[in-house]
Amino acid sequence: MSKPLIGHLIAGQPYCDNGQRQPLYNPATGAVCGEVLLAQPATVERAIDAAQSAYPAWRDTPPLKRARVMFALKALLEAHADELCELITDQHGKVLHDALGELQRGIENIEYAAGAPELLKGDYSRNVGANIDSWSDMQPLGVVAGITPFNFPAMVPLWMWPLAVVCGNCFILKPSERDPAVALRIAELAQQAGLPPGVLNVVNGGREVVEQLLDDHRIKAVSFVGSTPIAASIYARGSAAGKRVQALGGAKNHAVIMPDADLDNAVSALMGAAFGSCGERCMAISAAVAVGDATADALVARLRTAMAELRIGSGRDNSNDMGPLISAEHRDKVIGYLQTGVEQGAELVVDGRDAQLPAAGYFLGASLFDRVDASMSIYRDEIFGPVLCLLRVPDLAAAMQLIDDHQYGNGTAIFTRDGEAARYFCDNISVGMVGVNVPLPVPVAYHSFGGWKRSLFGDLSAYGPDGVRFYTQRKTVTQRWPSSGVRDGISYSFPS
Amino acid sequence: MSKPLIGHLIAGQPYCDNGQRQPLYNPATGAVCGEVLLAQPATVERAIDAAQSAYPAWRDTPPLKRARVMFALKALLEAHADELCELITDQHGKVLHDALGELQRGIENIEYAAGAPELLKGDYSRNVGANIDSWSDMQPLGVVAGITPFNFPAMVPLWMWPLAVVCGNCFILKPSERDPAVALRIAELAQQAGLPPGVLNVVNGGREVVEQLLDDHRIKAVSFVGSTPIAASIYARGSAAGKRVQALGGAKNHAVIMPDADLDNAVSALMGAAFGSCGERCMAISAAVAVGDATADALVARLRTAMAELRIGSGRDNSNDMGPLISAEHRDKVIGYLQTGVEQGAELVVDGRDAQLPAAGYFLGASLFDRVDASMSIYRDEIFGPVLCLLRVPDLAAAMQLIDDHQYGNGTAIFTRDGEAARYFCDNISVGMVGVNVPLPVPVAYHSFGGWKRSLFGDLSAYGPDGVRFYTQRKTVTQRWPSSGVRDGISYSFPS
Amino acid sequence: MSKPLIGHLIAGQPYCDNGQRQPLYNPATGAVCGEVLLAQPATVERAIDAAQSAYPAWRDTPPLKRARVMFALKALLEAHADELCELITDQHGKVLHDALGELQRGIENIEYAAGAPELLKGDYSRNVGANIDSWSDMQPLGVVAGITPFNFPAMVPLWMWPLAVVCGNCFILKPSERDPAVALRIAELAQQAGLPPGVLNVVNGGREVVEQLLDDHRIKAVSFVGSTPIAASIYARGSAAGKRVQALGGAKNHAVIMPDADLDNAVSALMGAAFGSCGERCMAISAAVAVGDATADALVARLRTAMAELRIGSGRDNSNDMGPLISAEHRDKVIGYLQTGVEQGAELVVDGRDAQLPAAGYFLGASLFDRVDASMSIYRDEIFGPVLCLLRVPDLAAAMQLIDDHQYGNGTAIFTRDGEAARYFCDNISVGMVGVNVPLPVPVAYHSFGGWKRSLFGDLSAYGPDGVRFYTQRKTVTQRWPSSGVRDGISYSFPS
Amino acid sequence: MSKPLIGHLIAGQPYCDNGQRQPLYNPATGAVCGEVLLAQPATVERAIDAAQSAYPAWRDTPPLKRARVMFALKALLEAHADELCELITDQHGKVLHDALGELQRGIENIEYAAGAPELLKGDYSRNVGANIDSWSDMQPLGVVAGITPFNFPAMVPLWMWPLAVVCGNCFILKPSERDPAVALRIAELAQQAGLPPGVLNVVNGGREVVEQLLDDHRIKAVSFVGSTPIAASIYARGSAAGKRVQALGGAKNHAVIMPDADLDNAVSALMGAAFGSCGERCMAISAAVAVGDATADALVARLRTAMAELRIGSGRDNSNDMGPLISAEHRDKVIGYLQTGVEQGAELVVDGRDAQLPAAGYFLGASLFDRVDASMSIYRDEIFGPVLCLLRVPDLAAAMQLIDDHQYGNGTAIFTRDGEAARYFCDNISVGMVGVNVPLPVPVAYHSFGGWKRSLFGDLSAYGPDGVRFYTQRKTVTQRWPSSGVRDGISYSFPS
Repeated sequence: MSKPLIGHLIAGQPYCDNGQRQPLYNPATGAVCGEVLLAQPATVERAIDAAQSAYPAWRDTPPLKRARVMFALKALLEAHADELCELITDQHGKVLHDALGELQRGIENIEYAAGAPELLKGDYSRNVGANIDSWSDMQPLGVVAGITPFNFPAMVPLWMWPLAVVCGNCFILKPSERDPAVALRIAELAQQAGLPPGVLNVVNGGREVVEQLLDDHRIKAVSFVGSTPIAASIYARGSAAGKRVQALGGAKNHAVIMPDADLDNAVSALMGAAFGSCGERCMAISAAVAVGDATADALVARLRTAMAELRIGSGRDNSNDMGPLISAEHRDKVIGYLQTGVEQGAELVVDGRDAQLPAAGYFLGASLFDRVDASMSIYRDEIFGPVLCLLRVPDLAAAMQLIDDHQYGNGTAIFTRDGEAARYFCDNISVGMVGVNVPLPVPVAYHSFGGWKRSLFGDLSAYGPDGVRFYTQRKTVTQRWPSSGVRDGISYSFPS
Repeated sequence: MSKPLIGHLIAGQPYCDNGQRQPLYNPATGAVCGEVLLAQPATVERAIDAAQSAYPAWRDTPPLKRARVMFALKALLEAHADELCELITDQHGKVLHDALGELQRGIENIEYAAGAPELLKGDYSRNVGANIDSWSDMQPLGVVAGITPFNFPAMVPLWMWPLAVVCGNCFILKPSERDPAVALRIAELAQQAGLPPGVLNVVNGGREVVEQLLDDHRIKAVSFVGSTPIAASIYARGSAAGKRVQALGGAKNHAVIMPDADLDNAVSALMGAAFGSCGERCMAISAAVAVGDATADALVARLRTAMAELRIGSGRDNSNDMGPLISAEHRDKVIGYLQTGVEQGAELVVDGRDAQLPAAGYFLGASLFDRVDASMSIYRDEIFGPVLCLLRVPDLAAAMQLIDDHQYGNGTAIFTRDGEAARYFCDNISVGMVGVNVPLPVPVAYHSFGGWKRSLFGDLSAYGPDGVRFYTQRKTVTQRWPSSGVRDGISYSFPS
Repeated sequence: MSKPLIGHLIAGQPYCDNGQRQPLYNPATGAVCGEVLLAQPATVERAIDAAQSAYPAWRDTPPLKRARVMFALKALLEAHADELCELITDQHGKVLHDALGELQRGIENIEYAAGAPELLKGDYSRNVGANIDSWSDMQPLGVVAGITPFNFPAMVPLWMWPLAVVCGNCFILKPSERDPAVALRIAELAQQAGLPPGVLNVVNGGREVVEQLLDDHRIKAVSFVGSTPIAASIYARGSAAGKRVQALGGAKNHAVIMPDADLDNAVSALMGAAFGSCGERCMAISAAVAVGDATADALVARLRTAMAELRIGSGRDNSNDMGPLISAEHRDKVIGYLQTGVEQGAELVVDGRDAQLPAAGYFLGASLFDRVDASMSIYRDEIFGPVLCLLRVPDLAAAMQLIDDHQYGNGTAIFTRDGEAARYFCDNISVGMVGVNVPLPVPVAYHSFGGWKRSLFGDLSAYGPDGVRFYTQRKTVTQRWPSSGVRDGISYSFPS
Repeated sequence: MSKPLIGHLIAGQPYCDNGQRQPLYNPATGAVCGEVLLAQPATVERAIDAAQSAYPAWRDTPPLKRARVMFALKALLEAHADELCELITDQHGKVLHDALGELQRGIENIEYAAGAPELLKGDYSRNVGANIDSWSDMQPLGVVAGITPFNFPAMVPLWMWPLAVVCGNCFILKPSERDPAVALRIAELAQQAGLPPGVLNVVNGGREVVEQLLDDHRIKAVSFVGSTPIAASIYARGSAAGKRVQALGGAKNHAVIMPDADLDNAVSALMGAAFGSCGERCMAISAAVAVGDATADALVARLRTAMAELRIGSGRDNSNDMGPLISAEHRDKVIGYLQTGVEQGAELVVDGRDAQLPAAGYFLGASLFDRVDASMSIYRDEIFGPVLCLLRVPDLAAAMQLIDDHQYGNGTAIFTRDGEAARYFCDNISVGMVGVNVPLPVPVAYHSFGGWKRSLFGDLSAYGPDGVRFYTQRKTVTQRWPSSGVRDGISYSFPS
């Protein structure tokens, strides 16, 4: 791939306008690896028009046939997995095995979408009154849009559009302008799998494109995943335009380690959850909460050892554990937090700047802060980097208070062997996705993904059953028939 | 009832502040029949505090026990039906038999809410991975609010709070300030039925109270029913405050009469649907669309006859068909539309001003316009009065185009004997609630109520399954246990 | 209650034939307390005829209206609770507080049945092919029957007929001929609650009545609860007659006590589960399996103490813990097992014959065997009396092997604090109802009740969702409409 | 394929024993085209052993992974469609396009089974009591068996085993010994798709094999499709052995043609439904019921014309409409009915013996009887050949009486344009699968297939949601945790 130009996909065809071009960087080298076109307003119009045009026929295509595109697409993605993972790694930076995991989770959403005929069943009630029947039919909305973040360039788009289109909608995807290649390539494969032109369109661009999509009255719904400030603003602007919006934002996910936890398991889990994909995950564990100093001390000792063995380098090398951050700016911002944390009194047990790092690219090692408290900005903010903050609390109640007081409520985990502690935690914690000895409790594709508090705006979570509900509108029919008719011998003239 | 003062219900107790008092009128006489307190900000605070305080214990009350309050409340409402209907009739004006119908539909929502244990079931999946289980738990939101309109002062509150509270939420109801008595009385009966203090609170007031509820971050969700401009603004403001909102607005519901319709049945249905409750219903039929001139002529002839027999008078007299409009202002506004319709070229076949009406009160007879077209304001606007517009079209396609072009998409109906016409209409029409030979296709309580287009803002409909989803937030737990534990002989010290 | 004659209830009326009369005994005194009529074949015919006659109208009654009978019946049962509990106690012997618990669990099934409109929803699919729709309608079967045991004379009938009738069936109940009064009284109250005559009929009798019901082709389904040999024979005979059958049989429910269990909690749980209602419950714990000798020794010590404090006496005295067994014969049979257990080598730690017992009536104290092994008949058989067998095993695997090897698979429980042990046990054990620190894991009414192995014959469990499925038959409609019709101007002549 | 020997598939490997060999005939030529081994008892034992051995690991394989075998199998079947259809045609006789239709319907069941993770979700209830949770887990049964008929040698096996195995069971399939090749080939492809050895086993044979499967206690459930007498006997024998059984039997499916029907559409539908696959379908229309003589006369005239154009010949020639019957004996039996019909007074309008037929093979043309009445054996019996009986009735009520009086209740259809007639028919008719203007209302794979009356024995229908329920057993867990534990500082010793 020699510095390609990433354009748009509209009505089943590649499309390039005269819009501004923005360079794309390979985070592992810092080199420009291509350009992306930022769509002009007319291009967005063109995409909406294409989607509108494709809608009537697609809406009337039986769900079974829509679902079969998903069967075909799954096979195609599996066949092209290597190519797709390389696209992810070269533009995002994550290690290939991590990219493959991302792709796999994306494909699971396609597998779920393949069950569309089952998922779209409505409720049927005979005799809601005498000889009156009523049923619900979950119909598509029309044209809907998705706006997705850089950190899962393949998976998050696959949370959205496969489900939207099997429900009968047409879709406009605006991927992150930092690593748009893989989403575009998957969209091309979807055409090959049999998706009719115009059912899925990809427009690249930045904020202007987002705002145009939010304001256009022909877009009936918008799904967004990104940071909380933008999520809040998208929720407000889309709602003000009268549309339905689900906007997923940021996180500060806590792992509580109880004194009875299997520590080896917990440390192994934390290493992946805190530093996998450089911590650039909305489900990353960025705060470890140790119950009791003994637990904390043991944890720090083990983490220090494990962190010393982390291999950091190009994502193209599958023996590495961590690749680069997404950009130089972001790396510098994370480094800034290291500095701030120390200034605010936390103990920087492991400093990621000391790690052995490649010379080029946006690399940074993993860091561990001990003795963090709730007032520090390294705790209050989402850093989105390989930085784990350890907080020490005397008991589970204190741990839960910390979590409940935080503005975010995306994911959390508890490490324990005790059934009662786990159940109490799960029941009472103000977080949408909870793991028991599972550090990244990302729901499987047939459940739904959604945080609480300022981690999600809207009433329906992403993908799974809630995704189906989000991408459909309820139509309820109530039917009775006049008592006199052909049964009573009313003579209809029938064509002979 | 001698000019009572309608105050608030907070923490299970009546509560009056020093707020402004606004007179309440009996629309059948025009006389002041009481006053309502408009809550001061501190009163709204007090209600929110009460709800917050009641929440933890109520949340932890098993759904089965929450549901039993509904069993008891149903029995109480049935025992107090006469009293409640009189409260409705005296403040709203509708005829007692109509009030009883309203109350009955409200009670059906309580019957549905009594099924809470079934409705709150989450999904359980064993082995989402090896020895990893995952399940969803639909938890309450906390404190939620409902804002309800004057036209169904008993039923619309019952669409909201019973379902919200059996889901474990605490509720703040702000009824219409024009006829707040019945909602307050029902709330009192709910205390008697065993609802703990603070679980349901009623605050009366106007726009300021609404805005305070929308802006307060402790209110997690708002349900609204009213006119479309206010619904849109509430949806935008509540969403900007980060909360979930469902806002139901206005309507222009069309009935299509096909040439093969059972006309006697259709006319009888239209009379009730157009003029029942003076047309002050968001599901009222206000536009009849006749397919073919023969159909139209036959329809007009029959309607004229039927309308001549309408009995208009006090709602206290159950032999009447129609009571008064809600206020003098509203009656004058409806009369204004009669004038405008004529000016814009419609044929005023029956003029409600000619009807025999009581001397006092806000009465107006039923009106029928023929030859209405889509450009007229009597067609474009929601009149919310006893005015039926007849439009003539050549075929079903033209009828459906009219409906699809209208800004509202609440309800619609088709009158036909033909299976194909009915199915085509139901499948393709852009309206959320569709009747086949059913003029008011209000879904039963175990389905859900919601229009399309500018008749509903939000993604979930009111009551029924969507109501349950709206008043709950999804929590997904993913659980595995460390492989070593008591099974492997790890010696826990157990207390002797 | 002075020696009443218990007859039948047919077509809404009490009915007595010239059949044989059988005495009823008060187990607390041994005195005859009434007589029960054993139905003649013509009486059973009469009941079937009544049910057949009532069926068409009841089938066509909207589910909402059928459900309302349940709302009314719940209120009536609560109002008559004292009377009903006395009927239970006087004929069955259990203590009044236990009778109230039984009645309460029965009422929960009525509460669930009150949700009939929700429970009867079918699935609706638009466009299974182009313009072809399909839906399922869960229709009633017609006339169905239930045959119930002596040990829960109120509850088990309420597992069956309320759900069957809200689904639209008509029902014939044959209660146990040992304590038929309460089921008959509840059936009378159901008439008062608004159940139309013939929808629920009660015929008393013994084996001949059962066989007549099994063989009559007009009975479409039979639900049975009783012992395993009879359940197996009923399943075979009803199936040979072509009908659907669910037949619930006996049990040997094991409680596994792990070394980390909260022993005080476990002992308290075991006391109720083993000796409550004299062990005459198909969910009673009759085998305690202690993991490790230390656990076993501690358990035996605590049980011995607790058993010494058991109060045994008339069920009319609510301060008692245990009443009499159902009959002298059954008491003698249980005593026989005590003897056999000793002979086969078990250690009779507490001998129920030594307890302080009333002079009259069929009383027997609680017994505890230690060092029971799997070859002994006290372990292999269902004793159905207040006898707890303790088995000692080295680890959980051995405990589970015992349970899996037993012929019964109704209920079981594990006592532990360890999440992993609990999950492993629940996942892998071959038993239908599993408790974790819950000794009697009887599913709540909105789940379903059913054992595995020889504890249940059939594929659907009792009550709850499975009950609804059992009492309905699936009808699937597939519909398309000819493309030419009224929409294309085919001129139907409509009646003018 | 030159006279191959069809053996068994056990533990993933072809297996041949020394059992009896039975010739296989090509019905289009009458020539022997191979042989099938009839399994000896030890072979059936071997298959059961293989299934038992494979069960534990397969049961513990996550549903998602089990489902993925279905994705792969679908692709394989589509790739091998030509080969599979030829196997069907050469052994069964049906025309290739019909074989493809059969295969396609079979694949739809695989698509449905691919949704296993969704289909296996249980219900989760928090707080069924204070701090007590309960959930259901639908677990596999173990080893289950299917016995399938000759008429759909690919499809009916695919109704059963894909769903059974994705639910976690291991399966033993005994296909029809007349055309076993395609089922065996599909089973081989399933191994290739990744099904572990022993999960699906195929044993060929006749009645002895069936009886061995029914009696072996290790087989937990049996699904059967065939004729009613055998279905009844299998239901009785399997039930007597204590297992769950669903046994689908014969049919006499009526199509009612109303006076307002679109006759061209109806005739076209009837031609396919009556004569497709030579009428050897349990959903074939074998009785047309015309309402009114005018309707009947018009129908007969059109049918006579259409039948004259039927092309009959080898199934290998896709231009043919009908192939041969399955065997010479069966053809002779059908011919016998033609004779009987005439003797009993029916009017043989078209005599299939007069058709132009190939010289060799078991061919017979399509026949039409007019003026059939309900007493004739051609009406009472299932002929399972290309014979359509026309009955004349005065009105819909008479038509429905005929259908309700028949012993079978599999499928039926009504042809009308009238919504009321269709709804009345669907609601009231005693038949499990109902078509409105759809002649073969076979439910799609995501609904379920099942007749009423003597067309199905058991309470659960085949495939779809009922299939999932049939192949799973409910396990209900009720869980609470002791209040004291690690949260209260109980010091567990954790391994350092």
